[in-house]
Amino acid sequence: MGREDQLINKLALGVPSAAGLQKLRDSRGAAVRLGIGDDAAVVAPGRNADWVVTCDGFLEGTHFLADRHPADSVGYKSLSRATSDIAAMGATARFFLLTLAIPQQLTDEWLAGFLRGMRRAAKELGVVLIGGDTTRSASVAISITVMGEVAPGRAITRSGARPGDLICVTGKLGCAQLGLELIRNSTAKGAKDLCRRESRLLRQHLYPQIRLKLGQWLAAHRVVSSMIDVSDGLSTDLGRLCAVSGVGARVWASRIPLVRIPAGYSKLARKLRLDPLRMALHGGDDYELLFTVPRRMAKRLESATEFRDLTAIGEIESGRRILLVDSEGRAEALRPGGWDPFR
Amino acid sequence: MGREDQLINKLALGVPSAAGLQKLRDSRGAAVRLGIGDDAAVVAPGRNADWVVTCDGFLEGTHFLADRHPADSVGYKSLSRATSDIAAMGATARFFLLTLAIPQQLTDEWLAGFLRGMRRAAKELGVVLIGGDTTRSASVAISITVMGEVAPGRAITRSGARPGDLICVTGKLGCAQLGLELIRNSTAKGAKDLCRRESRLLRQHLYPQIRLKLGQWLAAHRVVSSMIDVSDGLSTDLGRLCAVSGVGARVWASRIPLVRIPAGYSKLARKLRLDPLRMALHGGDDYELLFTVPRRMAKRLESATEFRDLTAIGEIESGRRILLVDSEGRAEALRPGGWDPFR
Repeated sequence: MGREDQLINKLALGVPSAAGLQKLRDSRGAAVRLGIGDDAAVVAPGRNADWVVTCDGFLEGTHFLADRHPADSVGYKSLSRATSDIAAMGATARFFLLTLAIPQQLTDEWLAGFLRGMRRAAKELGVVLIGGDTTRSASVAISITVMGEVAPGRAITRSGARPGDLICVTGKLGCAQLGLELIRNSTAKGAKDLCRRESRLLRQHLYPQIRLKLGQWLAAHRVVSSMIDVSDGLSTDLGRLCAVSGVGARVWASRIPLVRIPAGYSKLARKLRLDPLRMALHGGDDYELLFTVPRRMAKRLESATEFRDLTAIGEIESGRRILLVDSEGRAEALRPGGWDPFR
Repeated sequence: MGREDQLINKLALGVPSAAGLQKLRDSRGAAVRLGIGDDAAVVAPGRNADWVVTCDGFLEGTHFLADRHPADSVGYKSLSRATSDIAAMGATARFFLLTLAIPQQLTDEWLAGFLRGMRRAAKELGVVLIGGDTTRSASVAISITVMGEVAPGRAITRSGARPGDLICVTGKLGCAQLGLELIRNSTAKGAKDLCRRESRLLRQHLYPQIRLKLGQWLAAHRVVSSMIDVSDGLSTDLGRLCAVSGVGARVWASRIPLVRIPAGYSKLARKLRLDPLRMALHGGDDYELLFTVPRRMAKRLESATEFRDLTAIGEIESGRRILLVDSEGRAEALRPGGWDPFR
């Protein structure tokens, strides 16, 4: 068996996977006819479902630093952030494919950590590896394709927001950015210590929790008019949603759920000029859901399991302007200031 | 609109794609409900088909040289080699997703060439771009996921070869390796000239032709017992097919269809020690089909449209040994000597 085949075996054993000929039919319908180990995977679709498909790249140097970020975080986050797009459509995640380019010297210890993190994410997200490709490269480059299912016509797009709709967001915004800044500011050795000591503070940056269940609930109950995940920052992603929907928005700054900087880090935060509102507006990587709800539907949200994690932060308006309104009613334009790899 | 969004627009306009909300239902069934521009693509499966899914990485430095290989070859080849796995299952290629990591300075001229090549491949292969992800990186890294369809249960796996079956291969082997060696041996400037002057000789290396139609014909007519594409070299890929099928093989060296080295390159070939048989056995990147046929079915192959491109090169045997037999009947073990990125 060649080295590449050995590596593929490691992957197939390292994460929940469908290898060889089998029938993995579950209650929801789709079945894996053929998993890892042939030229391609074969999947029989469920009887009454659309496929939702997305791919996502995660690169050393661009998305993570090999000397600061733990290998298991790279495995966990690369899969969970790819799956976030499935959550944002209101779909159920089912299968994934992994293209992994990796330096030879990382194929032992580092790879074991990477697969440990990916295994944990796969279990939590309910996805199974059905195929992939491995190759050698000078730095780690990961691309993940996730396939999910949704009832026909029920996928929630970005394009349905209408004037008067409430704008809602899950969780707190800016948490991932805060984590990134703390890790960036530490040495390689300090980062290791920081990750262990501040696991809760760094959680959304290292091991982002994806709102798959809430997304599915919103799709199933037809409560929302549009949805997107906050992956590049609120200002950028709200801008995208509004552009596609052909609407404007008014965001109430005081309502945005902000990350809290622990007292022990306030001095460092001042030094690094970390402003909670700015991190919430423009920080990327939070993977919270941003969605719009017609006002007459808002009451229904109360029966969502994650209702207490929801905040209404503004409303959709006609026109094209996106405004940020402060506590005294002063409005200014909210321009896309989030993550853009090409800026 | 941010720079990343502008780049996504370039991709959506540059290759055949499904953008926005639409219904692209064709005679064979599957429909794109939602293409590029949302969090994920939504596809309604055809009524009576399995999905065949594969992903494939294509990296600067590992799979191509940025200073030697034309940008349009990178676009063409990255898509066609990914689609080769769909051909090897006997399926029809339908959709693809593209993860593209690219240095900032390549987002104009180089990207235009890349998309031109990818557009041509997409048209020839009959695939439509439904999603993707773009990001910045120090070197070009491409991952492509291709989705195809096949009648339920008709996908051709690697595992069905049985003792007595004939081993067949399409086209000539070693062509891609010869092309690679000529380009490797030239300067950056010389390579540009070579690609223009020797377009036919370099075709399988730069713009590999994929046997999608023959693959579909073989699946539809239930003629073959197993199939794989020759992507890493005959010795390696036949080894994989035999391992999964639990069989051995006997390959007749004199029957292998070899690349012909043009007279004008014979001196260079001697200098580079390019041996046609060795290139055919161990050279990668040919993307020809390698399949096994029960002898009683062999006659049926004559009605295949590409029959004159087929050659029987050996037979499956019981046991596990893979032997190469020379014209005088001497047999030696044929060990996997093809492309392995981790060797």
